[in-house]
Amino acid sequence: MSKAVFYHAGCPVCVSAERDLLNLSTENQVEIVHLGEETSKVEEAEKAGVKSVPALVTSNGNVLHINFGASIEDLK
Amino acid sequence: MSKAVFYHAGCPVCVSAERDLLNLSTENQVEIVHLGEETSKVEEAEKAGVKSVPALVTSNGNVLHINFGASIEDLK
Repeated sequence: MSKAVFYHAGCPVCVSAERDLLNLSTENQVEIVHLGEETSKVEEAEKAGVKSVPALVTSNGNVLHINFGASIEDLK
Repeated sequence: MSKAVFYHAGCPVCVSAERDLLNLSTENQVEIVHLGEETSKVEEAEKAGVKSVPALVTSNGNVLHINFGASIEDLK
């Protein structure tokens, strides 16, 4: 994985965090995945270690859970 | 406040998150404050809404709590 992936579920906490992170980051360095719309990716996120959204999985595989929007369990 | 401020306290969770965020962000956009060393800034962080470290206060004043290293109460 060469890009960081930002997983969210469209909640207000998620959207706000997304805007803040993207403002901060170098262009095109972060892929955005909306788990509410792309439910097939919930398993991928969970395997990466995502426990709640919004979360950022960095290119080296670390998971940063940012604030708390929703549990990954609630997205299944 | 024009810069984002990353507050941490030197814990492993903090240092790891710091590295990940700085890798992602555009150079010089984030100021780093070590609350364990600059204890006079704990009050400033608390006023900004920081409840635990590591946390990023964005330039527009939003607080992103990232994972969990230590409570701000424990740094007083």
